[in-house]
Amino acid sequence: MGKLYRRNLINSIGGYKSANLIGTKGPSGVNNLAVFFSIIHVGATPPLVGFLNRPTTVERHTYENIKSTGHFTINYIAEDFIQQAHQTSAKYPANVSEFDACELTPWFSPNCESPYVAESPVKIGLEYVEEYPIKANGTIFVIGVIKELFIPEQVIDEEGQIDLPALGTVAISGLNRYYKAERLAEFPFARP
Amino acid sequence: MGKLYRRNLINSIGGYKSANLIGTKGPSGVNNLAVFFSIIHVGATPPLVGFLNRPTTVERHTYENIKSTGHFTINYIAEDFIQQAHQTSAKYPANVSEFDACELTPWFSPNCESPYVAESPVKIGLEYVEEYPIKANGTIFVIGVIKELFIPEQVIDEEGQIDLPALGTVAISGLNRYYKAERLAEFPFARP
Repeated sequence: MGKLYRRNLINSIGGYKSANLIGTKGPSGVNNLAVFFSIIHVGATPPLVGFLNRPTTVERHTYENIKSTGHFTINYIAEDFIQQAHQTSAKYPANVSEFDACELTPWFSPNCESPYVAESPVKIGLEYVEEYPIKANGTIFVIGVIKELFIPEQVIDEEGQIDLPALGTVAISGLNRYYKAERLAEFPFARP
Repeated sequence: MGKLYRRNLINSIGGYKSANLIGTKGPSGVNNLAVFFSIIHVGATPPLVGFLNRPTTVERHTYENIKSTGHFTINYIAEDFIQQAHQTSAKYPANVSEFDACELTPWFSPNCESPYVAESPVKIGLEYVEEYPIKANGTIFVIGVIKELFIPEQVIDEEGQIDLPALGTVAISGLNRYYKAERLAEFPFARP
């Protein structure tokens, strides 16, 4: 296998993933933004989220900022700004804000210094909790706890489930292929 | 917030996730199978995959089997067997095979003792590499390395990308809502 072929195959073998932007506050106040496909639910009580940070890419700014400020935001990528969101994966210097470079709008809540993405239909504010350096390849598994959540109330049903297609949320596979989803089925809690 | 509402909200806030079955060989040879929504790509070279194991559910059989045998399989859930796949999340005793209980077919490769799901369009065979117990909530982040891969060759394009919709692969949100996806856009490697 060629190097690019192998990288694409092993990345896309992971199937559908959520597509998010992580917002952080950089050294001299720069509003940093980077696309992440490796965010997973870690637990509901306390509300924990984890993501994997590559050892050597633009994403390092995100990691350094989280370590220095102690907080970050997760913002859903939606259908109407996929291209701008994807562009944040370009390697901009630390003193350039991806918000400016990619034409996205920073938005702030009173309780969090890290920037949210105004265009994003779901905005999650988190505090850094802990991290695990992965021996096998030098990536870092970072865990945060949800402190606040901005989401249109009408897309949450009475059981607490979010209507993701109504929000225009997208999924991704590999490194650059985006999808919208259509609901197929829902099953009750399974019993033998 | 009520407990169920909160659990659903925090689970579904994670957005779209890949839906997979993990196959393992149990103590007295039982073919174990369990649904997992927390599998993520860890790296391409070596080809590493990680997943989060809950501390106290049926999924514990999976973890114990992986620790005792050193290997496991990941099998994509596809549209034509979602219901059987979801049913593997029921709490069956350790001596019952979810393959029998949920009407799925075990399949074996010459190089792996863990069972694959014959119905699954993509079958990945892995060896256990390492694990990280998460202090914040007692879950365990388990990492495996891909040893073999069974996938219809015609769905892999010349760049190594997999055509997931052509495979009937599904995504999930929350704990029980399944989706099919439709391709929206693809962007080249981003440069400033």
